[in-house]
Amino acid sequence: MLRTHTCGQLLLADVNKQVTLCGWVQKTRDLGGMTFIDLRDRYGITQLAFNLDWDKNICEKARELSREFVIKISGTVIERESKNKNNPTGDIEIRVTTLDILNKSITPPFTIEEQSDGGDELRMRYRYLDLRRASVRKNLELRHRLAIETRNYLDLLSFIEVETPVLIKSTPEGARDFVVPSRMNKNEFYALPQSPQTFKQLLMVSGFDRYYQIVKCFRDEDLRADRQPEFTQIDCEMSFVEQEDILNTFEGLIQHLFKKVKNISIDKLPRITYAHAMEFYGNDKPDTRFDMHLVQLNKAQNNVVAGKNFKLFDEAELVLAICAKGAANYTRKQLDELTEWVKRPQIGMSGLVYARVSEDGTIKSSVDKFYNEAALQLWANACKAQKGDLILVLSGSENKTRKAMSELRLEMGNRLGLRGKDKYACLWVVDFPLLEWNEGDPNLPESMRGRWVAKHHPFTSPKPEDVSLLTTNPGEVRANAYDMVINGVEVGGGSIRIYERELQEKMFSILGFTREEAQKQFGFLLHAFEFGAPPHGGIAFGFDRLCSLFAGAESIRDFIAFPKNNHGRDTMIDAPSTISEEQLNELNIQLKK
Amino acid sequence: MLRTHTCGQLLLADVNKQVTLCGWVQKTRDLGGMTFIDLRDRYGITQLAFNLDWDKNICEKARELSREFVIKISGTVIERESKNKNNPTGDIEIRVTTLDILNKSITPPFTIEEQSDGGDELRMRYRYLDLRRASVRKNLELRHRLAIETRNYLDLLSFIEVETPVLIKSTPEGARDFVVPSRMNKNEFYALPQSPQTFKQLLMVSGFDRYYQIVKCFRDEDLRADRQPEFTQIDCEMSFVEQEDILNTFEGLIQHLFKKVKNISIDKLPRITYAHAMEFYGNDKPDTRFDMHLVQLNKAQNNVVAGKNFKLFDEAELVLAICAKGAANYTRKQLDELTEWVKRPQIGMSGLVYARVSEDGTIKSSVDKFYNEAALQLWANACKAQKGDLILVLSGSENKTRKAMSELRLEMGNRLGLRGKDKYACLWVVDFPLLEWNEGDPNLPESMRGRWVAKHHPFTSPKPEDVSLLTTNPGEVRANAYDMVINGVEVGGGSIRIYERELQEKMFSILGFTREEAQKQFGFLLHAFEFGAPPHGGIAFGFDRLCSLFAGAESIRDFIAFPKNNHGRDTMIDAPSTISEEQLNELNIQLKK
Repeated sequence: MLRTHTCGQLLLADVNKQVTLCGWVQKTRDLGGMTFIDLRDRYGITQLAFNLDWDKNICEKARELSREFVIKISGTVIERESKNKNNPTGDIEIRVTTLDILNKSITPPFTIEEQSDGGDELRMRYRYLDLRRASVRKNLELRHRLAIETRNYLDLLSFIEVETPVLIKSTPEGARDFVVPSRMNKNEFYALPQSPQTFKQLLMVSGFDRYYQIVKCFRDEDLRADRQPEFTQIDCEMSFVEQEDILNTFEGLIQHLFKKVKNISIDKLPRITYAHAMEFYGNDKPDTRFDMHLVQLNKAQNNVVAGKNFKLFDEAELVLAICAKGAANYTRKQLDELTEWVKRPQIGMSGLVYARVSEDGTIKSSVDKFYNEAALQLWANACKAQKGDLILVLSGSENKTRKAMSELRLEMGNRLGLRGKDKYACLWVVDFPLLEWNEGDPNLPESMRGRWVAKHHPFTSPKPEDVSLLTTNPGEVRANAYDMVINGVEVGGGSIRIYERELQEKMFSILGFTREEAQKQFGFLLHAFEFGAPPHGGIAFGFDRLCSLFAGAESIRDFIAFPKNNHGRDTMIDAPSTISEEQLNELNIQLKK
Repeated sequence: MLRTHTCGQLLLADVNKQVTLCGWVQKTRDLGGMTFIDLRDRYGITQLAFNLDWDKNICEKARELSREFVIKISGTVIERESKNKNNPTGDIEIRVTTLDILNKSITPPFTIEEQSDGGDELRMRYRYLDLRRASVRKNLELRHRLAIETRNYLDLLSFIEVETPVLIKSTPEGARDFVVPSRMNKNEFYALPQSPQTFKQLLMVSGFDRYYQIVKCFRDEDLRADRQPEFTQIDCEMSFVEQEDILNTFEGLIQHLFKKVKNISIDKLPRITYAHAMEFYGNDKPDTRFDMHLVQLNKAQNNVVAGKNFKLFDEAELVLAICAKGAANYTRKQLDELTEWVKRPQIGMSGLVYARVSEDGTIKSSVDKFYNEAALQLWANACKAQKGDLILVLSGSENKTRKAMSELRLEMGNRLGLRGKDKYACLWVVDFPLLEWNEGDPNLPESMRGRWVAKHHPFTSPKPEDVSLLTTNPGEVRANAYDMVINGVEVGGGSIRIYERELQEKMFSILGFTREEAQKQFGFLLHAFEFGAPPHGGIAFGFDRLCSLFAGAESIRDFIAFPKNNHGRDTMIDAPSTISEEQLNELNIQLKK
């Protein structure tokens, strides 16, 4: 090795040792007779000391070094006069006796510091320099650690990691496939997997019983913020299990990861139904770090807003309230601001009604004209609002109001400091609907729009007691499907699968597949089910997202070594790019004019 | 869980336990009053016992079961009367009290037995059934174990696993790229990586210093036997190292794997040069389980075949001999057979000369007309042949003769039982040539033929002392490149890389890149080298091949869960396949007529 130690290693105990270090020049300080250099590598920073009196030549050579030069030095470890308690190696420095420049550096386009002066685009183009920053490097180290601990946990439980193929067949359910023209099979294409779903099910048919894989998946979607065309899943499947077995196994995984990586103990995860989540949180991935439940004020059997001539509420499909604890002291300005917030196009409500429960118990609202104190007290009762609380009310059409209130709840959680990054609320959401009506998601191929689509995917099994509804009322059928939600983020989802040919064919038919289409795309799976397929189910975790969650970060991009931008471009290597006519010819394709 | 135990778990100590098992019916035996069923899962086989006297209904139900039915049974563990010492669970059986059929099976197209009656094609089409066979399952278990131990070793040495992107840029050096049309970036294409080479080098520029990844790579080659379009590498890179550091680190990996997985201790690996390997074994991946070195009989300074009027040898560029120890008793028939063997088109020699050194020390050859006993004794001396040995001689043009003799050596190794599967000879071959002249490998794009190509790849550094030859005599330049060879198989290869822009540009220019082409394809790497790139080097192991080697198997196919056939097809899922007009339109491509 060119070095004897790393830059994160030397301590007081090493004083007087002869050492050789390699690394990058982080900083040089020229103090007249003395020159100090911070030498950086992946493991830390060590201070190098040069003195005109010790060695004139080497000191002058050191003064010529610029930021990001790669150097190799040898010298003696000495105790520092002024120690740096913020740096693990801050007790020592190296009195340098030889200095080699291994490679020079031109001036980097941005500073390689904790807080860089480079904008997002610039840092993406020079990703290899951005990766030198400790914060970005630590993200990838965290990712590695999570991968190790995931494997440790699953290996101990006899899961076997099996690599499934990347060049597979295009089966356009779900999102769009990336396709790969085959040169050897003219006019045919492979597709890149959106997930290894069918392969892991075939592994269950093969008797592999406990499978996992940390695996790249691909979706050709119009990229919304923070989606990547290639992403990584922790993909798992088990045989001879029921839903509760899977939930237990994989909440065990999450508990293991939190314990090992963050030393946080996570209790057994609560299970709430999809219906419950929608009712109390307004969405299927509730942030349960705080309560602030949604309360319907215009329930049929207990309508506390009707009959007061307030048309807006009388005519609304849904009137929803939340109670913001201790926020009765919100100023008029703050409330106006909140009103503007719900009126933004992203939320799209026409206004916000509020009622303050003051410290003396009196209640004042923005609709006092219609609701007297007694009427408002009914609101307060419904919301369990107490002295000092603020009630916020939205009304309108059902879906829109629920969605808006779900957003407002999260916003109030933020404003009241209830969503701390160091707090982790994990839960299972279960009993999802099997199907949902799709009007026209532009991410779906045209042929998939305006009909029933699978909420999870076509292989999810309906609850046995709901099977009879499949033909009469498909929207009411509940699935043996579950999501793991942490802090309002869906980190994983899965289901108990269909394992009988007949039911799987019925499912395809409900999803609008003709018998021929189902056979062409999934004939192999249907046929496999005839040879003794075991009951099975599984789950997949979004690994990029899980990493960002463990770091308390918002974006997944910084947890991917070489991410793509929102146009699916890697601006560093400049991909995608044109290819040669020769390549196109060999593949028997041409560009459309 | 649907079961309390697996089918590989129950022993005498479990007698009298109430258990529930799930699995597949391997075999049923109906012995009149008694019925026995072998129940199989991933972990083993457990015998189930049914008796008309114990329970008539359940016994009759058991008799109805066919092969590969999936069942769930409960019962009591009892000691067997006639124990089966070949089965770990052979001391016990289950007296079954409840029996549920979880799923039926139609008759499988081949037997799910150690020796299946299914042909290759049929087993590929029903791969999910072939994977039920213990031998195939064990291959994938071995693969998993090797992956775990690889990670354990590298993690301990502070290597960090980083995922590099799959959607990258087409850079057609080496083999053909698979390409992926981009929908969002019209008329542009991603390529699938042939290796993460440039990305791992960028990670070194980033300071990641020790990287690895077990990663899928892709090559669109005309598939020879036992090549796969997608394959897996153990890909590694280190900074601040010299060649010897990499050799030490990764022979450590191989030693670790052999110890942990096979309990075999491997000594420090010998290092031999490429030139040595070519001279003594005739190829650059010698099987060193046995010696049988190639001996040149027509050396300029010691020509032991010239001047005897044997035109064939006199005119040959190369006359090579090997000495097959103890094979002097080969019959005329065996020798004729060997002669036919070297005449086959795959070898392509016109004949084979032999000389037997008999037990009494006399030497008889197939060319006695030209060489008397004294002349033949010179051959024997050159080959170090002793009493009882057989000398085999081939002659002709240099490359062809060397290649043929290399093959004949391996063949004789086989025939003499010198290549035992349980014997492992590992070594490093070093000092490869940097470049080789390529006439016209059809796997290269046309533009790459008829010029110098990189023996490893364009990023391999020349030996410093040979750099001056780059312009004068490129073919003589040796590289800091190395292969790990085990039993005649190249399992890994790598090099110390170029890390200076100038040298890398020179290398591209020698390889026939214009400045513009180099800039377009690798500008990002050249630019990165300007920001303080550290000295670095690495290696990649063929993981599929490594697995097959550890199992003593010839083919890699059985170590891949879902392999493709020689036409790049997955016959199980029937991929590749046609895609819809809609998909083609969205990608702005069309098929050529």
